[in-house]
Amino acid sequence: MKPFIKRKIIASVAISLDGYLADVDGGYEWIKGDGNLALNTPDQWDYNSFLKDIDIVVMGKNCYDQQLHLDFANHQLLVATSKLQGKQDNITFINGDIVSQVVELSNQPGKDIFLFGGGLLIDQFIKADRVDEYIIGIIPVILGKGRPFFMQDNPCLELKLEKYTIDQGIVVLHYSRR
Amino acid sequence: MKPFIKRKIIASVAISLDGYLADVDGGYEWIKGDGNLALNTPDQWDYNSFLKDIDIVVMGKNCYDQQLHLDFANHQLLVATSKLQGKQDNITFINGDIVSQVVELSNQPGKDIFLFGGGLLIDQFIKADRVDEYIIGIIPVILGKGRPFFMQDNPCLELKLEKYTIDQGIVVLHYSRR
Repeated sequence: MKPFIKRKIIASVAISLDGYLADVDGGYEWIKGDGNLALNTPDQWDYNSFLKDIDIVVMGKNCYDQQLHLDFANHQLLVATSKLQGKQDNITFINGDIVSQVVELSNQPGKDIFLFGGGLLIDQFIKADRVDEYIIGIIPVILGKGRPFFMQDNPCLELKLEKYTIDQGIVVLHYSRR
Repeated sequence: MKPFIKRKIIASVAISLDGYLADVDGGYEWIKGDGNLALNTPDQWDYNSFLKDIDIVVMGKNCYDQQLHLDFANHQLLVATSKLQGKQDNITFINGDIVSQVVELSNQPGKDIFLFGGGLLIDQFIKADRVDEYIIGIIPVILGKGRPFFMQDNPCLELKLEKYTIDQGIVVLHYSRR
């Protein structure tokens, strides 16, 4: 029998060099590379491969309202909201202490858990130091203003760089806890 | 005769993954690697080599008050302050429109110009889009709180990744304008 390996809780986001998740209007048009292939790594970050190792996706209500849940028809989806309740297709609406509920799931056998966003949802997990892996894509742009990924007043969390890939100036950094 | 190449204005800083230059007390003890050599690049970012291509260092008054100018005895040093005036050894105190004064120097022959910090000084150059190269070392830590590098309300600046090095989980990214 295979020993049980704890499911990882993974935050994966793309941010500008100055730390924004989205522009002031919530737009993502700036999420693109610089067109230069010269620094590309042989290995590439592959979102679809990543999703194959995930069975639960957690997102906030804003992401749900933007229909982003439609991308995860083959995953179990948890949407954090106090406005909706119960289940609907592959979606379970959750509220209250989101972190504890997700951590409890992470202690059950299964694939990994993907914290999709937004920033306020992931922030709760950062503040509780419950993110096992950070996959941060750094877009080669200073966006200047927008919606920040990291909120204020987090604990100091020492990380270990586990892996990196580069694609057209987008640097994807994978960190675990140190 | 060699054609004149414009001197670059270079900002080089180390920041935490969440974008801080220093902790809340101004401390830098967290600026260290994760101890893992496995991802090190063959080339390494070499601060001393970098300084050989620099002849002017620009810093704010706080850095000067912290005696950080003592590290640059062999460079021409510009300290931005309205409190002090004139010259002292290798230091010239400047005030008023700092950006214009430094840009004027960048149009004269010489080596490159290093914007040392702090954040408020470099911010003036970012806002004016007068930084020719950003060298950003990303320390493998979420610091949680502290003094941010990127201030609010910057222009959107598209960058090109020119180079990267990794040393014990510290990822140094070199960007130019796109």
